Amino acid sequence: MKQLNTFIDIAPDCDFTMHNLPYGIFSDSINGARRVGVAIGEWVLDLSILEQHGLIQLEPLAQHDNQNSPTQNSQSLFNQASLNPFIASGKANWEKLRSSLQNLLCADNPTLQENAALRQSCFFKIAEVQLHLPLHVPGYTDFYSSKEHATNVGCMFRDPKNALLANWSELPVGYNGRASSVIVSGTDVTRPSGQIKAPDQERPVFAASAKLDFELETAFVVGTATQLGQPIAIEDAAEHIFGMVLLNDWSARDIQQWEYVPLGPFNAKTFASAISPWVVTMQALEPFKVQGPEQSPAPLAYLQESQTQTTVSYDIQLSVELKTPQAEQADVICQTNFKYMYWSMAQQLTHHTVSGCNVQVGDLMGSGTISGATEDAYGSLLELTWNNSKPLQLSQGQSRGFVQDGDSVIMKGFCEKDGIRVGFGEVSNTILPALAFDFSAKG
Amino acid sequence: MKQLNTFIDIAPDCDFTMHNLPYGIFSDSINGARRVGVAIGEWVLDLSILEQHGLIQLEPLAQHDNQNSPTQNSQSLFNQASLNPFIASGKANWEKLRSSLQNLLCADNPTLQENAALRQSCFFKIAEVQLHLPLHVPGYTDFYSSKEHATNVGCMFRDPKNALLANWSELPVGYNGRASSVIVSGTDVTRPSGQIKAPDQERPVFAASAKLDFELETAFVVGTATQLGQPIAIEDAAEHIFGMVLLNDWSARDIQQWEYVPLGPFNAKTFASAISPWVVTMQALEPFKVQGPEQSPAPLAYLQESQTQTTVSYDIQLSVELKTPQAEQADVICQTNFKYMYWSMAQQLTHHTVSGCNVQVGDLMGSGTISGATEDAYGSLLELTWNNSKPLQLSQGQSRGFVQDGDSVIMKGFCEKDGIRVGFGEVSNTILPALAFDFSAKG
Repeated sequence: MKQLNTFIDIAPDCDFTMHNLPYGIFSDSINGARRVGVAIGEWVLDLSILEQHGLIQLEPLAQHDNQNSPTQNSQSLFNQASLNPFIASGKANWEKLRSSLQNLLCADNPTLQENAALRQSCFFKIAEVQLHLPLHVPGYTDFYSSKEHATNVGCMFRDPKNALLANWSELPVGYNGRASSVIVSGTDVTRPSGQIKAPDQERPVFAASAKLDFELETAFVVGTATQLGQPIAIEDAAEHIFGMVLLNDWSARDIQQWEYVPLGPFNAKTFASAISPWVVTMQALEPFKVQGPEQSPAPLAYLQESQTQTTVSYDIQLSVELKTPQAEQADVICQTNFKYMYWSMAQQLTHHTVSGCNVQVGDLMGSGTISGATEDAYGSLLELTWNNSKPLQLSQGQSRGFVQDGDSVIMKGFCEKDGIRVGFGEVSNTILPALAFDFSAKG
Repeated sequence: MKQLNTFIDIAPDCDFTMHNLPYGIFSDSINGARRVGVAIGEWVLDLSILEQHGLIQLEPLAQHDNQNSPTQNSQSLFNQASLNPFIASGKANWEKLRSSLQNLLCADNPTLQENAALRQSCFFKIAEVQLHLPLHVPGYTDFYSSKEHATNVGCMFRDPKNALLANWSELPVGYNGRASSVIVSGTDVTRPSGQIKAPDQERPVFAASAKLDFELETAFVVGTATQLGQPIAIEDAAEHIFGMVLLNDWSARDIQQWEYVPLGPFNAKTFASAISPWVVTMQALEPFKVQGPEQSPAPLAYLQESQTQTTVSYDIQLSVELKTPQAEQADVICQTNFKYMYWSMAQQLTHHTVSGCNVQVGDLMGSGTISGATEDAYGSLLELTWNNSKPLQLSQGQSRGFVQDGDSVIMKGFCEKDGIRVGFGEVSNTILPALAFDFSAKG
């Protein structure tokens, strides 16, 4: 891989290199309108300005491709409140835009570099803009594809002798999440309240969750829609994926344990699912492809990704940090890697559609909690503290079984190879105390 | 209740009376644009024409109320491909429109009655138009609120001695459905394929579902959105509900039984959830309010709908008909009533949001299968045939354990009191054979 030179200063540990060019939605204090930007170094480059100056030539969005996305302006791909119109404009545009941007930003190109007024109008410091939810998310699905995570949870919530249920090794188990509560990094999360039943009590009580947890995940973004009744063959699945984000699938374990039988998690998860603001494209991740874990038993034919029965994964280094209000800096509490995931993104998408279910541009598909094999690689506090039986010891003498009010959870992810880095930035949220409910009028 | 007179001829058994006025989305062979109509007798009245002629005066939609709905035309509430802009324009408009229409259609009013050209331009025979999905559905949630249904399924899928799980009596169990595959009545449904595991086999096979089933449900439509972190108090829940539709939550029982642990149904349900084309408003249903079943134990305070611990239900007569390709007419295979539902719509909505989960205009919330106490009142074939152990005997010598290719399932619902009828019309789908999959290249 050859390092691409740019006229922008990029720090060595910066996630947003010329090889990355992730897309997001931003606004600034002078122009409050949301529009599409690309992150490069410490900067966001306003694509609506480049489009306006004719510096990006793309195919326009066909009107019928956009029936499910709200649009601000049907003439523009980038003067938009979400990435959906650009994504829906098609894969040829994804490639054109990437090469246009690499060309405009490259060290040899004077167009932006030598036009101070234009540069002034289209570059903003990331630290000084507001980053918004990058996508309009019509559907959110969450899988459960880490064998280590499913085994750990099965041990605690069900039966250590049969931790992994029989279907787990045959299909990428998943469920429908709640799309309305997908939020962007930086949004505070209010501790949820709900029904909680103590094992020694006959009935549940209504209370604030005492077992608030994170789940370290990634999610992929569907880039090409399908019609109902048209499954995506495994060979074609990769073509339907636009990019990836980090995902913290916030979970209230005590609410979950009481409510989840027989129809799955609901209120325990619907209060917040947070994603990182920059969508990293599959083109940027291409150099970091690796082979996924061996699958045994061999999956059924419709899930076989290659003749050699291997899957495509990505070497993405992931970490979770927890910062208590008392601490000056965050503690790293988990380090793991996306490449440990048993089921691949292609398998997830193919399984999702094999019944005929259609997908839409902007659909978010979570990986499931990404746990590695060792205790410091577990992707949730439930696993890291083994359901609060082994609280984590943090700096400043603090310890944690679950997340407390005022705590911030910060997830980071990046790929690195041959000195080239492509990173996701972070997804970070701080916990606010539960709402006060007053039922005294009910006696 | 006083019968409202109209200049339109309405048959005695017609669902679409002056007391009903349900809204839908239609297009016709001359004007292919989707727009809002109201059903009256055999007719659909084009509200976009009435709006254009200044015959309906409503408050315009505030732009910020509509961030999640695609709009055709921001100046119009009715020249739109979904009801969402009108619904989002607010409860005051719902009431204004209803009284405007009752006034325009009443026998004493010459405006439409005596203007043949106008009548010609705005009335279409329902039988001659195309009815479309009435809503843009940002979120679809399905509850499980019939005690009889939950008990029956628990007996068959789990343990007859503990059929009803402990949480069922404490909260309206629900799960996130798949919004993308919500379809309108009349859409054919392709039999889904997926993983099915026979009890005596070690591994699953990939096959077309052999246990395709319907679920007789109603669903309510959210009319007023909330912000994340703002639960809806039970006292306020009814204010957030715009109306109701019939829902057939198509289910593949063999796929479901293998996949549903531990995260709930997924591919078994995501291939199609069909709704009736006309949204019946809560104002139209108001006269048919009845008290729901006694709840024991008394729900926790946040779910208590009244001081007297009763819930608000509706007397809606429901039926399911099955028509085989051999039969000249459909057989009625189930007759039941919405009023048997244990958990109320207000309780469902309050529970859904109590964790802080936000709702959006157009969200669809399914009741869960509506089964009565007797064997002819069960709302699914799984229950009616007791998992195919007692196939149904139909006319023309046909019998059915589950739904076969070419079969049509038709659900109907109506309220009737003091000679006044308010009905839902029907939700009907015909089953197409499963897709052919060819995995021979995989060896």
